[in-house]
Amino acid sequence: MRALHEAILSQGIGIGSDIVKVDMFLNHRIDTALLNRMGQEIARHFAAKKPDIVLTVEASGIALAVAAGMHLGGIPVVFAKKSQAVNQSSDLLCAPVYSFTHKQQNMIRADKRYLPSGSRVLIVDDFLANGEAVRGMMDLVKQAGCQLAGVAIAIEKGFQPGGQALRKEGVDLYALAVVDSIQDGHITLREE
Amino acid sequence: MRALHEAILSQGIGIGSDIVKVDMFLNHRIDTALLNRMGQEIARHFAAKKPDIVLTVEASGIALAVAAGMHLGGIPVVFAKKSQAVNQSSDLLCAPVYSFTHKQQNMIRADKRYLPSGSRVLIVDDFLANGEAVRGMMDLVKQAGCQLAGVAIAIEKGFQPGGQALRKEGVDLYALAVVDSIQDGHITLREE
Repeated sequence: MRALHEAILSQGIGIGSDIVKVDMFLNHRIDTALLNRMGQEIARHFAAKKPDIVLTVEASGIALAVAAGMHLGGIPVVFAKKSQAVNQSSDLLCAPVYSFTHKQQNMIRADKRYLPSGSRVLIVDDFLANGEAVRGMMDLVKQAGCQLAGVAIAIEKGFQPGGQALRKEGVDLYALAVVDSIQDGHITLREE
Repeated sequence: MRALHEAILSQGIGIGSDIVKVDMFLNHRIDTALLNRMGQEIARHFAAKKPDIVLTVEASGIALAVAAGMHLGGIPVVFAKKSQAVNQSSDLLCAPVYSFTHKQQNMIRADKRYLPSGSRVLIVDDFLANGEAVRGMMDLVKQAGCQLAGVAIAIEKGFQPGGQALRKEGVDLYALAVVDSIQDGHITLREE
C-alpha cells in the first residue's frame, strides 16, 4: 500500500537488523488519516470473504482493527486481552503467545460469547514477524468453532518466517507492507 | 448521547453498586458502528477548541480515541503506555496512575516528541470514576508544556468523585453518558 510504504520510508526507523520503529504513526502516535486509509484497503481486500468479526490483540492492534471493522460495514472488533482483569468473565478462551518485544510469554484471552461458533473471523494486527500473536489468535478462532476469513497485517517482516509459513498453510494473509531487510538504518520494502 | 444510553441500558451489566460492564460493545467486543457515532459526537462537542492531538491510555481508550481523531479531521492520537517496552525510546514523560480495576499502580508513559510544547490536547478515555487515569494524562499534558483542550469520556460514573472535581477546576469535561447509580443489577443513567 503506497501511503504506508511512504510513511515507513520517511518516518520509520530501522534499528539493527530486525527492528522497524513506527512509533510516530502506528503504535504510539497514530496517524488517524493514514489509519483510515489502511482500514479501507483491508476492507477492499477482504470484503468478498464477508467477515463477521475482526479479532485483534491489545494494545497496538486495536486501532487498525477498528479502522478495518468500520470499513467492513461496521462489524464488531474483539480484542483479546493479555491480563486477567478483576471484573472479567470466567467464561474465557485462552491461548499462549510469546512476545519477542517484551521477552515473555503471555496468555491471550477472549470471551467465548463474542466469538460465536460459525462466525467468519478476520484477524488484524500491526506487525507480523515470527507469527506468534497470529498463531495465538488462530488458536482462539479454532477453539471458538469459528472460520478464519484471513489475516491482515500492517507491516510484515519478510525476513522472519511467520508470514511464509502461514501462506504455505493456505491462509489468506495480506500485509499492507513487507519489510525485506534492515541494514545500517536503511529499510528495504518489497515491491508491491 | 442517545445511542450510547440505549446500548448501556440494553446490553450493559450492573454489578454490585459500582461496576458497569460494557464488554459487549465497548471494551472487549467493540461495536464499531456505535463507536463511529461516539467519535462523531466528541468531535462535534470539541471542534471549536481546535485540538491538535488526542491523548489516551492503552488499551481500552484507544478505539474511542481513534474514532474521535478521525472525526476531528484526522488529527493524531497518542496513547500513553503502561509498561516499558524493550525497544521504546528513553525520552519519556511519566506519570503514576492507580488502577482500581487491576488494583495496582502503573506508570503511564508517553514519548515527549509526540506531545510538542504548545499543542492543544484533547484527552479521551472509556471510563471516568475517580479520575486517576485522566489526572495522570493531565500530568503528561502539563509536563509536555501543552494546553488541555478538554476531556471526553464515554461513560462517567457520576456517583464517584472524579468528574465533579474536574468540572470544579474548570475542565471542559464531556461524558457521553453518566451513570447515576447501580442497584440490584439496574443501571440508572442521568438524563441528558
